[in-house]
Amino acid sequence: MRFQLSSGLSIVVCLGCFSAFLLKYLSGSGGKKKEDVEKETGLGLIKKKNENFEEWYSEVVVQGEMIEYYDISGCYILRPWTMAIWETMQAFFDAEIKKMKIKNCYFPLFVSPAGLKKEKDDIEGFAPEVAWVTKSGKSELEVPIAIRPTSETVMYPYYSKWIRGHRDLPLKLNQWCNVVRWEFSNPTPFIKSREFLWQEGHTAFATKEEADKEVLEILELYRRIFEEYLAIPIVKGKKSESEKLADGLYTTSVEAFVPNTGRGVQGATSHCLGQNLDITYENEKGEKAMIWQNSWSYSTRTIGVMVMVHGDDKGLVLPPKVASIQAIVIPVPSKDADTHVIFDACLKIVAQLSEAGFRVEADLRDNYSPDWKYSHWELKGVPLRIEIGAEGLEKKQVGCVRRDNCVKVDIPVVDLVKEVKDMFDKIQQNLFDVAKQKRDASIQVARTWDEFTVALSNKKLILAPWCDEHEVEENVKIRTKSAIGAAKSLCSPFDQPELPEGTLCFASGKPAKKWTYWGRSY
Amino acid sequence: MRFQLSSGLSIVVCLGCFSAFLLKYLSGSGGKKKEDVEKETGLGLIKKKNENFEEWYSEVVVQGEMIEYYDISGCYILRPWTMAIWETMQAFFDAEIKKMKIKNCYFPLFVSPAGLKKEKDDIEGFAPEVAWVTKSGKSELEVPIAIRPTSETVMYPYYSKWIRGHRDLPLKLNQWCNVVRWEFSNPTPFIKSREFLWQEGHTAFATKEEADKEVLEILELYRRIFEEYLAIPIVKGKKSESEKLADGLYTTSVEAFVPNTGRGVQGATSHCLGQNLDITYENEKGEKAMIWQNSWSYSTRTIGVMVMVHGDDKGLVLPPKVASIQAIVIPVPSKDADTHVIFDACLKIVAQLSEAGFRVEADLRDNYSPDWKYSHWELKGVPLRIEIGAEGLEKKQVGCVRRDNCVKVDIPVVDLVKEVKDMFDKIQQNLFDVAKQKRDASIQVARTWDEFTVALSNKKLILAPWCDEHEVEENVKIRTKSAIGAAKSLCSPFDQPELPEGTLCFASGKPAKKWTYWGRSY
Repeated sequence: MRFQLSSGLSIVVCLGCFSAFLLKYLSGSGGKKKEDVEKETGLGLIKKKNENFEEWYSEVVVQGEMIEYYDISGCYILRPWTMAIWETMQAFFDAEIKKMKIKNCYFPLFVSPAGLKKEKDDIEGFAPEVAWVTKSGKSELEVPIAIRPTSETVMYPYYSKWIRGHRDLPLKLNQWCNVVRWEFSNPTPFIKSREFLWQEGHTAFATKEEADKEVLEILELYRRIFEEYLAIPIVKGKKSESEKLADGLYTTSVEAFVPNTGRGVQGATSHCLGQNLDITYENEKGEKAMIWQNSWSYSTRTIGVMVMVHGDDKGLVLPPKVASIQAIVIPVPSKDADTHVIFDACLKIVAQLSEAGFRVEADLRDNYSPDWKYSHWELKGVPLRIEIGAEGLEKKQVGCVRRDNCVKVDIPVVDLVKEVKDMFDKIQQNLFDVAKQKRDASIQVARTWDEFTVALSNKKLILAPWCDEHEVEENVKIRTKSAIGAAKSLCSPFDQPELPEGTLCFASGKPAKKWTYWGRSY
Repeated sequence: MRFQLSSGLSIVVCLGCFSAFLLKYLSGSGGKKKEDVEKETGLGLIKKKNENFEEWYSEVVVQGEMIEYYDISGCYILRPWTMAIWETMQAFFDAEIKKMKIKNCYFPLFVSPAGLKKEKDDIEGFAPEVAWVTKSGKSELEVPIAIRPTSETVMYPYYSKWIRGHRDLPLKLNQWCNVVRWEFSNPTPFIKSREFLWQEGHTAFATKEEADKEVLEILELYRRIFEEYLAIPIVKGKKSESEKLADGLYTTSVEAFVPNTGRGVQGATSHCLGQNLDITYENEKGEKAMIWQNSWSYSTRTIGVMVMVHGDDKGLVLPPKVASIQAIVIPVPSKDADTHVIFDACLKIVAQLSEAGFRVEADLRDNYSPDWKYSHWELKGVPLRIEIGAEGLEKKQVGCVRRDNCVKVDIPVVDLVKEVKDMFDKIQQNLFDVAKQKRDASIQVARTWDEFTVALSNKKLILAPWCDEHEVEENVKIRTKSAIGAAKSLCSPFDQPELPEGTLCFASGKPAKKWTYWGRSY
């Protein structure tokens, strides 16, 4: 991994201070202008996470080399630092669904208008965002062709064709692909982009029981992606009638939360579509019956949530399980020491840790000071830094600095493999624990409308007793509408707190039926 | 893997004869009409490979459940049977390029017209095939946006931005993605489709030596995909000036050949673009210098070549290394035998072989006869069939039938793992050997124009001494133009036969400079 530095810069190489550095990539999205900001204090970010979250986010994804802004608004270049994370999650999820006998396929990017109209309710939601191809070369197409915003309408006519008898069930397909939703409001890297990468699973069963079971099995895989890989606590729950997939029977989701902005994030969804798509087959008794369908997906949006939750004023903070470099080895030369000896020791440590299965690299560039390198790899979010100097080598030890809590410890070289493994486990766990602590500290119970509005303005994740009526939710949206969006239900957690008889809905005053999380969301 | 059978069919289940079966999916491409053909003789294909190659091909990819035709011409659904092959090749290639320190990234699907124009020569070749998005929802876009036919013009402006100094080199990126070329002539599954999947590598170096070296390293990986995975012999060589990438310095390729049609297939290309893209950086001496660039790609087209080369009148023939099911276990019940015992034995064999790392499944469906299953799995191209009956079990042996040569042997159960491994190796090798024998038998040396035209009409892969002049090749194209296309140079093989002094060009009569392969091509 090379750091792209403008040539011709003069860099003050000295220990104990940051080198001057020209920030190159601070180019804003949408209407924002490019800025070239000379920064005397080093590699750190200009914006602070707590002071200006949105600009901090735009800065950290670019400076951390995850994203490059592109010359079409709302489209982003996913750089290798991002793709390695995506591929790690993909390898996990793909192996798990293969165990479930779900098979990968690939359906076309293009949808004919006839196809698009088939599932009219569903697609109406997407209609304003559908991109249309009307020309090839200099010729007008006879019929404009849509680009998939999702593949329900692309795939289900073929399900209908393939599923004739009960022996054709279950049919369980998944695809990894790009989809396009030409949104115009607030493009944000990962979180809201016009093209994004995702997987979409589409399955069909003979019985509701099988469909229900799979919905939850997939949801559990999504929980694991967030909690075990990205170290982000989520709530598993069910969406309200307003928030579920229009054509579906019910929608489950994993919901994350960004304390800095007080916004919920729908992390991934697992839908039971019920029998709403009217695909019939001949069951074992020779009768015409309808299939039960599910669909489920998660996208590169997950990576944006990870950046938002863990990143800090120094830059990205990557969980070891997804970081493409888990530890960076940095030589610390000193006046009297033989640099070659130190460099050799660095390479030896890299070999030893790589051998043990860790993703480790050494930064042996001779044109940057150790301090510059510390800042650089902190900005990139590498979980562990290993400093190797003459003094430590004499004592047969190296210095290890954790990115998550900045704690430095000296580790005897003989124990390094064991200790590094231990530190990765601890970093992974600590990131989750800290994120959960912050998330939990944001949860506020609101039993009345007043409590609700105060909590909302305090950027809380609001847990409120609710009557579960559609009109009441719509009314909440109207009453909370503002320049920064309206509040809505996020999910009714599966894990329900006790709801004593006589508890009233925070919004309608009617008898409450369940606890539900509310808030603004991405 | 379930076979999609229309419900309500009456199937004659008996040993020794084929069951009646309704072919459902015989839908033609382009202007062809759907046909529903009732076929009394079983599951075999209607068309013969040697009699009507094109229709045989359309039939086998659909009946073998690799492809489903789609309601937009030139777009195809890649079914799981295809995707498993693609993923196997992808896993191999991705791991190999990662060893070469090439990193994956993802650039947007969309290209602004400004971007598209930057590399004008290159893109002019694609211009008539570029699909344009002009609308989102009901709004006209201010500026139409192109869909990538390839990503040179998408990526290189960012290379120019990222590469400032010599320390930014080499920059080696790859992406796995879909691309769109809205061709109008002869859409053919895998071989010519409007959207296809591929990888595209784009790399930049400080020196020509590094670029040259990588071109050949990548080409060797492509050779391995064809020869080691798909069991297809190729010729490695260099493209002529007419056939190389317009903007590039030189193009290397692996060239396959389809004896039935006498057409060459460009299997994959590895280009050295030279310094033609004018991206500069500051070299180690502080001087302005230009980078050396390569690009290289292979696509789902490879899978079509595999079908064309190995398939036969019974259906697909898959090489064991890429088959998603390498062996299918089929119970052969008999009157006096206990079916449960046989079924249990099948499951045990599956477990034993899966344990050993093979991809094996049992077909225990009770509504199909063994013969029906034999035909079904032959159609799908599974490399090995394992038949398990009462008689064999008594002798502690099973019957194994190879798909490639139909040879049946009885194998003692205790030796099964070893023998199956051996058979897979032999099948893989035999497929390659047979394909190579056929390919080699098609090679015809032509030293004169008359020999050349005779060989061409005999569907030969023509090896001819050539003066290597652009005008002469253009002239060959004009002189051989016909309804089935013109002949052109395929490649000049790296492995050159001796060219005695005084040898003349087959087409111009001038002194020949090299041996070159010629033919019609896909």
